[in-house]
Amino acid sequence: PNAFLGSLPTTIFTTMSQLAMAHGAINLGQGFPDTEGPAELIDAAAEALKDGRNQYAPLTGLPELREAVARANRRDYGLDIDPATEVIVTSGATEALAVSLMALIEPGDEVVLIEPLYDTYLPVLRLLGAVPRCVRVEAPDWHLPEDALRAAFSAKTKLILLNSPMNPSGKVFSQQELDLIASLVLEHDCYALCDEVYEHLTFGVKHIPLMTRPGMRERAIRIGSAGKSFSVTGWKIGYITACPALTAVIAKAHQIIAFSSAPNLQRAVAKGLDLGEPFFTTLSDSLRARRDLFAEGLHALGFPTLPADGSYFVVADISAHANGRDDVAFCRDLVIESGVAAIPVSAFYDPQGAEPPRHLIRFAFCKTEAVLTEALDRLGRHF
Amino acid sequence: PNAFLGSLPTTIFTTMSQLAMAHGAINLGQGFPDTEGPAELIDAAAEALKDGRNQYAPLTGLPELREAVARANRRDYGLDIDPATEVIVTSGATEALAVSLMALIEPGDEVVLIEPLYDTYLPVLRLLGAVPRCVRVEAPDWHLPEDALRAAFSAKTKLILLNSPMNPSGKVFSQQELDLIASLVLEHDCYALCDEVYEHLTFGVKHIPLMTRPGMRERAIRIGSAGKSFSVTGWKIGYITACPALTAVIAKAHQIIAFSSAPNLQRAVAKGLDLGEPFFTTLSDSLRARRDLFAEGLHALGFPTLPADGSYFVVADISAHANGRDDVAFCRDLVIESGVAAIPVSAFYDPQGAEPPRHLIRFAFCKTEAVLTEALDRLGRHF
Ligand SMILES: CSCCC(=O)C(=O)O
Ligand SMILES: CSCCC(=O)C(=O)O
Repeated sequence: PNAFLGSLPTTIFTTMSQLAMAHGAINLGQGFPDTEGPAELIDAAAEALKDGRNQYAPLTGLPELREAVARANRRDYGLDIDPATEVIVTSGATEALAVSLMALIEPGDEVVLIEPLYDTYLPVLRLLGAVPRCVRVEAPDWHLPEDALRAAFSAKTKLILLNSPMNPSGKVFSQQELDLIASLVLEHDCYALCDEVYEHLTFGVKHIPLMTRPGMRERAIRIGSAGKSFSVTGWKIGYITACPALTAVIAKAHQIIAFSSAPNLQRAVAKGLDLGEPFFTTLSDSLRARRDLFAEGLHALGFPTLPADGSYFVVADISAHANGRDDVAFCRDLVIESGVAAIPVSAFYDPQGAEPPRHLIRFAFCKTEAVLTEALDRLGRHF
Repeated sequence: PNAFLGSLPTTIFTTMSQLAMAHGAINLGQGFPDTEGPAELIDAAAEALKDGRNQYAPLTGLPELREAVARANRRDYGLDIDPATEVIVTSGATEALAVSLMALIEPGDEVVLIEPLYDTYLPVLRLLGAVPRCVRVEAPDWHLPEDALRAAFSAKTKLILLNSPMNPSGKVFSQQELDLIASLVLEHDCYALCDEVYEHLTFGVKHIPLMTRPGMRERAIRIGSAGKSFSVTGWKIGYITACPALTAVIAKAHQIIAFSSAPNLQRAVAKGLDLGEPFFTTLSDSLRARRDLFAEGLHALGFPTLPADGSYFVVADISAHANGRDDVAFCRDLVIESGVAAIPVSAFYDPQGAEPPRHLIRFAFCKTEAVLTEALDRLGRHF
């Protein structure tokens, strides 16, 4: 078997979820809501199973979903997207990322990434023979260091992979930071792959797609996620938006990797996208209240939290309670002793790179208030 | 963008389906049924949306589907499969193929394939840096030449990719042929990736999984498809069965390519697999009747058909009516002049390989009798 894949560890999300299960812990590790998505979406998905359209959807997605994606781009960001040639529906954002990388990368290409980062990025890149160049946003304020970012680009750079709102940090990149990134992409004549799955989950700041910055319309690939936008992470419906020259190649990768996605779920997601502003405001307000509840609770227990303006996640500093343990050991003890599962932030750094921070852990706050309160109570018994 | 992917033509299925649409032709090109799968499956999928399990399924699939796959393996083939460690649920057989190949292949490995072959095999292989070694089963009887097969194996062979029942030929490999393949796999200490998506669609012969042949339990990877077995090609639920040493690596590829599949569809498919023999007999009897109807009709019009003991497809010889046209030109004319879409069989050969046959076209007969009769009527007006 393939030696590189064989050497990959099991994803930290599966490992921690299993540990949580074994110890009856509250799972604030893996990022998924513990409530269902909107009833009207679920009803629409069920209805759509029953009117005789359960055969292959078109390779790039059902027209009605591609049109809804284009409408949402115009409404939410003023982007003018052609649904016929600039949208591809995928089997979740994970597939969207993989096929976009396949479409862009040749072995030996360099890819700029920003750590801490989501755990599938590096394995996919390395499988494709690309060379990662990682830059770090630094705790405690998740500052993006311009010099380091600039130094990570080279004549071999094929793309930067940007995740905003960012997992695990919760950082939402500012317009100034995006303009810097856009200028570097232009200067190095390369691309930007934008994982924007948390686009609608921001708190008091607005998400800005890199694609809206000068020169980026033809160079940015935007990835969205129905799972994250509508609290149905199991559905695995993602969507890619890019210019036709890029979608043409991405479609080839999608053709040989997954081909198409379930028509009934696509049709429901199309309805979801049309819910628009009122729905997304309610969702993000509700998440923001839960972030506040949980972050304030952590603070009170001696776990200062770092700024988290978007996503499902908040990172806490364990220094005051670590007693010499690193984040991995701390998370293990936390499950067993306190009955609360979190993810060590060091798991989000390149295992082949420099020493990661060891004093940070990530909590998913996309859970009901009752669950978050119970988790804080459990933590309060030990800290 | 990636030069190899960029150079791939659009899949012939999409091209012919679009041409069929543009000319109001009956589409016997792309292989999908024009009737729905069993109502009880569709109802189960709709019900399953409504009881609060729409978040991420486990990476290897829901336990209830993995257990149903294991039960079906025992019932249908006497294979004893551990649902916890030997089954992976995928986003359709296309993803199953891709992640299995990723898990096995290192750049430079050789892969033995049998032409004519399904059109995603070669692009995935080449993207992974593997070198294809193609052997041909030959019209008119789809005979597998032992010497050529033996010669295709070498010290560099990593696997043979076997598709039985086979698309586009409709060939179902005999026990004798499978034993030959098994002996070559053992002799060359390699693997067999078995695309068995049409396992339940055989007519008067029984499908034999290569995995049941001596020595193959640890070397064969079996791919099944809910889309094909239950006439819901849009659902994109596939399943891989292999020994734990192989599934461990395949799971890593699946983790970074698609991660998981929709829980409600998985739960419905679990119910489907338990329908078992009576359901599959009814389905294959019905398909067999339609194959007979259509093949006899073609014969009567001067298009002799080749043996097709399984799958959705039958291949016809156009020599009597070709008038100097090759299969590609003939199919184009057929759509435009007769209003019937088929697929040129030359599209199923390596474009970098030796000259393919140019006198064969493939029809999908997985359509209602009324549609098949209308297609024959339309052909009858010209031939
Ligand atoms: C696909 S499992 C991981 C879910 C997630 O995005 C996270 O927890 O970071
Ligand atoms: C995924 S589209 C192709 C369907 C099919 O299996 C075929 O027509 O050969």
